[in-house]
Amino acid sequence: MPAATALVFRPATRADLPAVLALLADEERVVDPAGVEVTEAYERAFAAIEADPRNEMLVLVNGDDDGEGGTGTVVGCLQATYIPGLGKGGAERALIEAVRIRADRRDGGLGRALMEHAVSRARARGCALVQLTTDRSRADAHRFYTALGFARSHEGFKMAL
Amino acid sequence: MPAATALVFRPATRADLPAVLALLADEERVVDPAGVEVTEAYERAFAAIEADPRNEMLVLVNGDDDGEGGTGTVVGCLQATYIPGLGKGGAERALIEAVRIRADRRDGGLGRALMEHAVSRARARGCALVQLTTDRSRADAHRFYTALGFARSHEGFKMAL
Repeated sequence: MPAATALVFRPATRADLPAVLALLADEERVVDPAGVEVTEAYERAFAAIEADPRNEMLVLVNGDDDGEGGTGTVVGCLQATYIPGLGKGGAERALIEAVRIRADRRDGGLGRALMEHAVSRARARGCALVQLTTDRSRADAHRFYTALGFARSHEGFKMAL
Repeated sequence: MPAATALVFRPATRADLPAVLALLADEERVVDPAGVEVTEAYERAFAAIEADPRNEMLVLVNGDDDGEGGTGTVVGCLQATYIPGLGKGGAERALIEAVRIRADRRDGGLGRALMEHAVSRARARGCALVQLTTDRSRADAHRFYTALGFARSHEGFKMAL
């Protein structure tokens, strides 16, 4: 796993927002954060995540260049939502969304490290379960989550409004 | 759809908690709320849902006997979580969990009415998407959600902690 010693996992700051939006737009090639338009709607959504004690956007940053207020190069992200509920003896469950590793940094173990970090945060918080969904066509993602210890136990349904 | 005129949809109150826990324990037969143990952990979890502006436990109640503070007979429930995010132009998405209709009231359209109510609340709130997962073995549930307009587009992964 290259560069494992220099990795930093931390909640995103406002300064990371263009880089996170670039990651979310990055399907197959690296998107330059400088070219991303940070709309007011994205500003509001990020502020909502940051202010909510049950939501966090975690980023994976090159530790070498990370400083106060978030100055490092963001190479991965995911969002965790901690959901209170009446199943599982009243414990929270963690929902993971928006998992991304920058296109030029894939296949080096960063995704695994980021997910393991998220799972250990959920465990430390007392969550009884971690859950996520992936597109049905993403066979590579299915292998990835299965290897991490997830069971493909459910069908995921979505409806656009 | 029998008794459609007498249905009330509302957020659960503390008085509904035993009935909601009974519904969640009800797989194939009606569970008497009077026999449900409301542990401190369930009290805390319910208080967390009630206090969180992005979570709500919705109940479907016989309107005939519903009064101030929640005195009606609860025959259905679901939990909605509204998740802020950086996809979908910064719009929230709604996650639906814990959908239950009391065993002796199934197959009469109540589940459909409850889900349609939840979807219209999500739409009114400005959510871009409604999502949920069901156990892979529940073919009846898959038909139910498909008929409501959901696409079975994702695989659902879970890991117990």
